[in-house]
Amino acid sequence: MKQFLKIIILIAIINCQSSWCQETASVVEDFKPSEVNQPGKDFPQVNSQGRVRASVVAPNANRVRLDIGGVKYDMKKNDAGVWIGESAPQDEGFHYYQLEIDGASVPDPGSLYFYGAGRWGSGIEIPASDKDFYAVKDVPHGLVSENIYFSKITNAWRRCFVYTPAEYNIDAKKRFPVLYLQHGSFEDETGWSSQGKANFILDNLIADKKAVPMIIVMDNGYAYKNQGNTTESKPVSVFEEVMMNEIIPMIDSKFRTLSDREHRAIAGLSMGANQTMRIAMNHLDKFAYYGGFSGTSNYPSSDEIDPATFLDGKFNDGKVVNKQLKVLWLGLGTKEPKPFPGSVGAFRAMLDKQGIKHIFYESQATAHEWLTWRRSLYQYAGLLFK
Amino acid sequence: MKQFLKIIILIAIINCQSSWCQETASVVEDFKPSEVNQPGKDFPQVNSQGRVRASVVAPNANRVRLDIGGVKYDMKKNDAGVWIGESAPQDEGFHYYQLEIDGASVPDPGSLYFYGAGRWGSGIEIPASDKDFYAVKDVPHGLVSENIYFSKITNAWRRCFVYTPAEYNIDAKKRFPVLYLQHGSFEDETGWSSQGKANFILDNLIADKKAVPMIIVMDNGYAYKNQGNTTESKPVSVFEEVMMNEIIPMIDSKFRTLSDREHRAIAGLSMGANQTMRIAMNHLDKFAYYGGFSGTSNYPSSDEIDPATFLDGKFNDGKVVNKQLKVLWLGLGTKEPKPFPGSVGAFRAMLDKQGIKHIFYESQATAHEWLTWRRSLYQYAGLLFK
Repeated sequence: MKQFLKIIILIAIINCQSSWCQETASVVEDFKPSEVNQPGKDFPQVNSQGRVRASVVAPNANRVRLDIGGVKYDMKKNDAGVWIGESAPQDEGFHYYQLEIDGASVPDPGSLYFYGAGRWGSGIEIPASDKDFYAVKDVPHGLVSENIYFSKITNAWRRCFVYTPAEYNIDAKKRFPVLYLQHGSFEDETGWSSQGKANFILDNLIADKKAVPMIIVMDNGYAYKNQGNTTESKPVSVFEEVMMNEIIPMIDSKFRTLSDREHRAIAGLSMGANQTMRIAMNHLDKFAYYGGFSGTSNYPSSDEIDPATFLDGKFNDGKVVNKQLKVLWLGLGTKEPKPFPGSVGAFRAMLDKQGIKHIFYESQATAHEWLTWRRSLYQYAGLLFK
Repeated sequence: MKQFLKIIILIAIINCQSSWCQETASVVEDFKPSEVNQPGKDFPQVNSQGRVRASVVAPNANRVRLDIGGVKYDMKKNDAGVWIGESAPQDEGFHYYQLEIDGASVPDPGSLYFYGAGRWGSGIEIPASDKDFYAVKDVPHGLVSENIYFSKITNAWRRCFVYTPAEYNIDAKKRFPVLYLQHGSFEDETGWSSQGKANFILDNLIADKKAVPMIIVMDNGYAYKNQGNTTESKPVSVFEEVMMNEIIPMIDSKFRTLSDREHRAIAGLSMGANQTMRIAMNHLDKFAYYGGFSGTSNYPSSDEIDPATFLDGKFNDGKVVNKQLKVLWLGLGTKEPKPFPGSVGAFRAMLDKQGIKHIFYESQATAHEWLTWRRSLYQYAGLLFK
């Protein structure tokens, strides 16, 4: 009889691997407030299945939905006019989401807000099994500084956030290497030190002696000529020019940096991976390390790359690239959607064909989202300046 | 005939001084996007009358209202399902606001978000006639650094923001005086460097040589014993203990400060004025400057103060106070509601009776809001460390 029960349970488990079953399966009632809620707010909540439960007071609304992961989940109203409802299980890590109240897409009044998907809006954390590497721990903490500057190239005020390791404030003479770290499309300069947790990742890596103390500069990848002039019809990105002629010289003058190429790295995620690959390859005299998280410059194409023409032939001489780039690092989540696996795959095939050394990291069970990129930073930063 | 028309217009203008007339008078169609909108968002907007016009897509909603300044204004839906509506004229300066969609109070998806009124929510700027003093100008800009620390007293992670003047990063040996600057009730450590514009106010003051370059520390005024222990029934504030035993020693060790009393000032707004007055008077060996913006420690009472008992008699010997406090500064907006004028007035009467020197500043046409406090900081900071 026991054996029979085991078989029944086993069949049930096997059947429930499908997402249909996960979505309709019973909800485990162990919800806890999300760790990125506003102070004192009980909702949204997350349970051990990774479901998100939202709640909002909307006594006169007709329909309220929780909009997360590309799916809208209907919520139900109780007698007190409070709507409540939950999503299917979500991947571990950070997700953007919103509420829809009678057709209006608005931030959830319970969550903290993050810039992504082209707007300030709600975010939620599904606790990851490996969350320890970005946890706030009792280790020396660096500072994240907001740095305002005027860009002559774009004719506009711009902003970057600069992480300085704990040691920076202790030893007033020491100089540090610098990593320039870029966000993805529809995100901004706040992403890496907020939902990206770059500061905590580095604090922990440095405390564990797994990374060299370094400065991290997080700027905004959107930069256009004459941004003040709104009559401009077709904006052309000048981010590379801003990075090389304004950001790097400013950082080298305002902060105690080591300013030779051997002590300067660059990396980015998605759109930022594309941008920073071009910048690194166009200025190999300035950078010795490149990291591409969920992106490469052949995006969105999955076609075979011709190294003679791709990026003006910058990968054509594999020996030169191997000599110049001390680390060429690529990362991708195993659940990333098209076209990312295809385009990153085509890029890697080109590298192999050219005999170009590189590291490829796979983030298990994560998609085109921030847990992939937190893990990528953790892996990549540990290899720099050694 | 011309003279007759002039008289009619004059009568109309005189009659329109009443708020009733202002609210119902015709709306001037010169609305522009608010300067604290999210990137690329056209709404909310502000016109030359100080009216706020909000807009939100909510095709299936029954009633949408703009909730600002304690009044809810009905918005109207057009054929495209877009609600639009405007408020009565608002005071110059910064205001918190929200939208109400079928009874749900939510942030406006068009605005940037600020922490106030106990929640992250929408804010708007009504351009002030004197806004130049906090404008972003082509002057050297300091940094605002996010500083994470563990408090043993509260058993919790805490955060402060630290402004360092531009010179701090240029001269790696120089030490600077420090102003500890606190927010009001239902606000947090983000207030002063966001809606408070403390960094831009100081950048401009320092560039104009109207203020001494100084460090500003902006911490969170809410601090309770064993914050990790949620079973605690009656929380007692330990902010004074955290300030004296944790924040100040940390700042003096992490930053290049001048750490004697002559180079340490303290100030706060509303609840923060109350808190910092107690802290300053209990530790006159540690502070030489006090600023109270829209608040005093006798709040909310307007009764006559007995200096023998008030704050354990700390104001009883006027000569000692005059000798110890190089600046005792109070500010108040002329439109502040009860009980602020009464309690600040009672406090000033006590100072006069005790022969205690102080400066009293009135912010014209502002209420218990951030323009009062921006102006107060501008006035107060210019008097420090001289």
